[in-house]
Amino acid sequence: MALNGTLRPGLVQLRVLDFDKTLNFYKNILGLNEVCRIGEDRICLKGFDEFDHHSLTLRLADEAGLDFVAFKVASADELEKMKLAVEAFGYPVDTVAEGDQPGFGKRYGFTISTGHRFEIYSEVALAQKGPGIKNPDIWNEPPRGMRAQRMDHFLLYGPNIAEAERFCKEVFGMFVPEVCNTPDGNRLAAWITSSNKPHDLAFVEYPKPGKIHHLGFYLQDWADVGNAADWIALNRLKLDIGPTRHAITRGLSIYFWEPSGNRIEVYAGGYTAYPDNPQRVWDSSELGRGLFYYSGEVIPSFLEIVT
Amino acid sequence: MALNGTLRPGLVQLRVLDFDKTLNFYKNILGLNEVCRIGEDRICLKGFDEFDHHSLTLRLADEAGLDFVAFKVASADELEKMKLAVEAFGYPVDTVAEGDQPGFGKRYGFTISTGHRFEIYSEVALAQKGPGIKNPDIWNEPPRGMRAQRMDHFLLYGPNIAEAERFCKEVFGMFVPEVCNTPDGNRLAAWITSSNKPHDLAFVEYPKPGKIHHLGFYLQDWADVGNAADWIALNRLKLDIGPTRHAITRGLSIYFWEPSGNRIEVYAGGYTAYPDNPQRVWDSSELGRGLFYYSGEVIPSFLEIVT
Amino acid sequence: MALNGTLRPGLVQLRVLDFDKTLNFYKNILGLNEVCRIGEDRICLKGFDEFDHHSLTLRLADEAGLDFVAFKVASADELEKMKLAVEAFGYPVDTVAEGDQPGFGKRYGFTISTGHRFEIYSEVALAQKGPGIKNPDIWNEPPRGMRAQRMDHFLLYGPNIAEAERFCKEVFGMFVPEVCNTPDGNRLAAWITSSNKPHDLAFVEYPKPGKIHHLGFYLQDWADVGNAADWIALNRLKLDIGPTRHAITRGLSIYFWEPSGNRIEVYAGGYTAYPDNPQRVWDSSELGRGLFYYSGEVIPSFLEIVT
Amino acid sequence: MALNGTLRPGLVQLRVLDFDKTLNFYKNILGLNEVCRIGEDRICLKGFDEFDHHSLTLRLADEAGLDFVAFKVASADELEKMKLAVEAFGYPVDTVAEGDQPGFGKRYGFTISTGHRFEIYSEVALAQKGPGIKNPDIWNEPPRGMRAQRMDHFLLYGPNIAEAERFCKEVFGMFVPEVCNTPDGNRLAAWITSSNKPHDLAFVEYPKPGKIHHLGFYLQDWADVGNAADWIALNRLKLDIGPTRHAITRGLSIYFWEPSGNRIEVYAGGYTAYPDNPQRVWDSSELGRGLFYYSGEVIPSFLEIVT
Repeated sequence: MALNGTLRPGLVQLRVLDFDKTLNFYKNILGLNEVCRIGEDRICLKGFDEFDHHSLTLRLADEAGLDFVAFKVASADELEKMKLAVEAFGYPVDTVAEGDQPGFGKRYGFTISTGHRFEIYSEVALAQKGPGIKNPDIWNEPPRGMRAQRMDHFLLYGPNIAEAERFCKEVFGMFVPEVCNTPDGNRLAAWITSSNKPHDLAFVEYPKPGKIHHLGFYLQDWADVGNAADWIALNRLKLDIGPTRHAITRGLSIYFWEPSGNRIEVYAGGYTAYPDNPQRVWDSSELGRGLFYYSGEVIPSFLEIVT
Repeated sequence: MALNGTLRPGLVQLRVLDFDKTLNFYKNILGLNEVCRIGEDRICLKGFDEFDHHSLTLRLADEAGLDFVAFKVASADELEKMKLAVEAFGYPVDTVAEGDQPGFGKRYGFTISTGHRFEIYSEVALAQKGPGIKNPDIWNEPPRGMRAQRMDHFLLYGPNIAEAERFCKEVFGMFVPEVCNTPDGNRLAAWITSSNKPHDLAFVEYPKPGKIHHLGFYLQDWADVGNAADWIALNRLKLDIGPTRHAITRGLSIYFWEPSGNRIEVYAGGYTAYPDNPQRVWDSSELGRGLFYYSGEVIPSFLEIVT
Repeated sequence: MALNGTLRPGLVQLRVLDFDKTLNFYKNILGLNEVCRIGEDRICLKGFDEFDHHSLTLRLADEAGLDFVAFKVASADELEKMKLAVEAFGYPVDTVAEGDQPGFGKRYGFTISTGHRFEIYSEVALAQKGPGIKNPDIWNEPPRGMRAQRMDHFLLYGPNIAEAERFCKEVFGMFVPEVCNTPDGNRLAAWITSSNKPHDLAFVEYPKPGKIHHLGFYLQDWADVGNAADWIALNRLKLDIGPTRHAITRGLSIYFWEPSGNRIEVYAGGYTAYPDNPQRVWDSSELGRGLFYYSGEVIPSFLEIVT
Repeated sequence: MALNGTLRPGLVQLRVLDFDKTLNFYKNILGLNEVCRIGEDRICLKGFDEFDHHSLTLRLADEAGLDFVAFKVASADELEKMKLAVEAFGYPVDTVAEGDQPGFGKRYGFTISTGHRFEIYSEVALAQKGPGIKNPDIWNEPPRGMRAQRMDHFLLYGPNIAEAERFCKEVFGMFVPEVCNTPDGNRLAAWITSSNKPHDLAFVEYPKPGKIHHLGFYLQDWADVGNAADWIALNRLKLDIGPTRHAITRGLSIYFWEPSGNRIEVYAGGYTAYPDNPQRVWDSSELGRGLFYYSGEVIPSFLEIVT
């Protein structure tokens, strides 16, 4: 596949309630590395297997939730073209100056139909502690805790996801490997990707705007999913569901809440997606099995709790 | 990433010595499904997780080895543009008529610097027994034997791989996540991809043209690598090496020979590659560790035996 | 440890509602082998890794549940001594003639305090299709479905488990690696073993006599637990809970119902128990975490549904 | 099974060349905990899943190798009976006073036919950092490095293993699940256990007395075997062979050398042994497959290097 367009979700900013228990979770339990701090209220982190400066910023706030998600675009030239395409799609665009987040160049921001702030950027410095590139070991140092490799994807809840899906295809050049429709043919959920991963992001139709269901981190495999569950138990984190498998994306997964109340997924596996493969289509009546393949039933907390 | 250009290696034709033991291997041990036969001397197979008509053709011959590899291109329009780009690169192009392989449209063929026949195509029918797309289970039926999911990649041996690498970048639009150089700075090996997979193909510099080192099939994870090793043992297949891990690609792997003498790899894991990530560079003095991370030593058979 | 006394639970007879769907489950999904039939209403099965003639007999009946469990004793001499010990403990003993179950010698039967029929025997023929013993492969043929290796343990519900526990220690020579007590110091549950396994059987205090909570089968590891879950989903079996881990026994587990309504556990791992190690003691207030380590909560179905 | 007789190998004393690199290996790579020191030249360690005071003592010396192995006996009474049985078998017995190793009671020592010093004891204090016993988590703290759970078994090389095997059966009350014989019917190797584990110790016939081939530590499963291999690679330890599977014992395994030159095995799985099961018998011509099931070939270093 060609190298142009949107590469990946590269930066997420979450709101957290404290830098004590919550930071301990992200660093010592999930296994991210702290990269830098921004003033008194923001801390930047990354997974051990990410090359870029950082991928997650935690901001102190009064309630949990999502500030924005940002996508890396392949070149400065494409960034400018994409900015115009966003505006042509109908969304006003603002500019976040280079250096607002250490290591990141200029970002363009806008709000999509679901009420989420999206950003795009093309410049980001390499991390000092990225994966080795000269005769590299598989890690520079052994992963900690749940051994999260990287920030992987997010599931967003909000209104008018049909437009959000169309935006991702038309402006970001993404494709949609899997969808779920209601009996009357409306889109209930869509899984969307810019790459071989089965999803880089997903949407669920929801009346309130700007909500995040979960932020997903990638693990090596089912054995690491089991290891993550042992860490959840040992640290008395609140489990939502899992270990389980999604029929949708085919991923192996656990959902739980971090200390500030943001739902986190640790995820492994998933099929290899190609844009020329047929789209998988789910009826909403079968969504239980699609989400939780083993039990076939959606648990209420999974559908009802978002931040 | 945009959806244009070369999508993936989609078809390989191997030479085999018989349709008895060898076919039993591919179907009942490796776990592929037979799709169709072409005359008396060719049999077409695919993995359970592949959508396209078939991905592997076995041709009866007097000695093992590779006839050709073929790559799927995103559209008919891009196929024609790519044909011109191949010719512009300096390789004469011939045409294989639609229907030469059941389900496949017209293919263009040419020989690259390493002496291998490459083909490109844009049209291929969906398989009758592809993955489910309507409220799908993760499989239509439980995988057999080694549970190979799909044909994944191949390692080719031949002269002048520097040109082959340049061809893959300039004409196919691929990128090169990892390379190995000799002390005098020449390319010894390159791992090349069109996607997030760490490699779709690889080259090793070798004086004789047109050789194949191995054909790789994808497994779910390390547990399936162990399962594959149990099947190797139970069926008294000749092991080359493994289970092991490559530092290069980070994949988990076993190499062995199928009954006709073609080396097969079953492979899982591997990092998620992006074109904007730094290239990993190996010194040939460290290649042992790069290939076989646990022992740090290359076994002679691995370097010397090709077909 | 010496080789005398009770070796293991060796035979269970369950009631099932049909020999169609239910037998298909035990053979093709759970992966047992059919050994023989007794008249029109009983079918005998065993796991691929069991040496003895069979370990599970299914009897056609109007409702699911347990007929009896039987334990293998190390020698004919010890069998007679144990019969006397059972009687001395206060339980009347009856004799089941050799040949009642093909391959099995004489069995002594009696009812313990919980209302369950226990049997003991010392003679059982080797299975025709047991594990290999001359330069053996790890399997004679690849395991099917969930790849259950053997019948492993059972959890029995009934009254007065304190006496049942005392019986297992005093008469069977077993030990009790783990227990759960109510706030007033009464026994709520006990896990009991004759070997290094963390449990060969377990009891939960319950007002109705003679109930079985589940019959457990042994799997190789967590990867096989995941595989079993995929088979549950593919075959639309009713899941109770899992994949999960017990803190009690430390086993990795799934519970579900077979088509006749008997709850089945597939189980892997578990600690290595020794009689001189300290007993692990649970407060009933912590039983949720003891049973389902990841969520820390008991689901109602798990406590309420027995057969 | 009854609770009398020899329970398990409980203490091994190895010779090491330094307390710098070697101790770092045992603690930070293998994952044992340091318990105490004896003078300047001995350090005592244990696995996180062992209840007893310690299980491995490292003694500073000029060359690697084994000082002694010690077995825990079920009671003081049985210890005295066993001492008499050892003497009756023909081996002179000496006494090591209580407190020679912190936490251990009196030990009796003697030399068996293979030239190894064996010891027996019945009293040992519980470790301060043993597994939890009151509403316990599966670990008190997450395992480190290779996550070795416990000292598990050892393979001893020496002359006249037929007598050693007879000793283990007659005096220790052990049984012999698996053996290997030469074409002329002599014992080449024997795997011996006092429990459900497929081996607590093993012997290989060898002209030089008192040699140890490897000391084995137990891991949870195949995933942990893979993790251990990653740690071998990252720390540039010298691999002997693996990850592989033994057909003998059915264990999953890696062999490598610690910094002082003692060969270590990390091992998972293995069948559940019972004394009434048939003995598995290997021809020495098939030993390659018995040892290294995947390749079917013994590597020379495995047979030739002992300490």
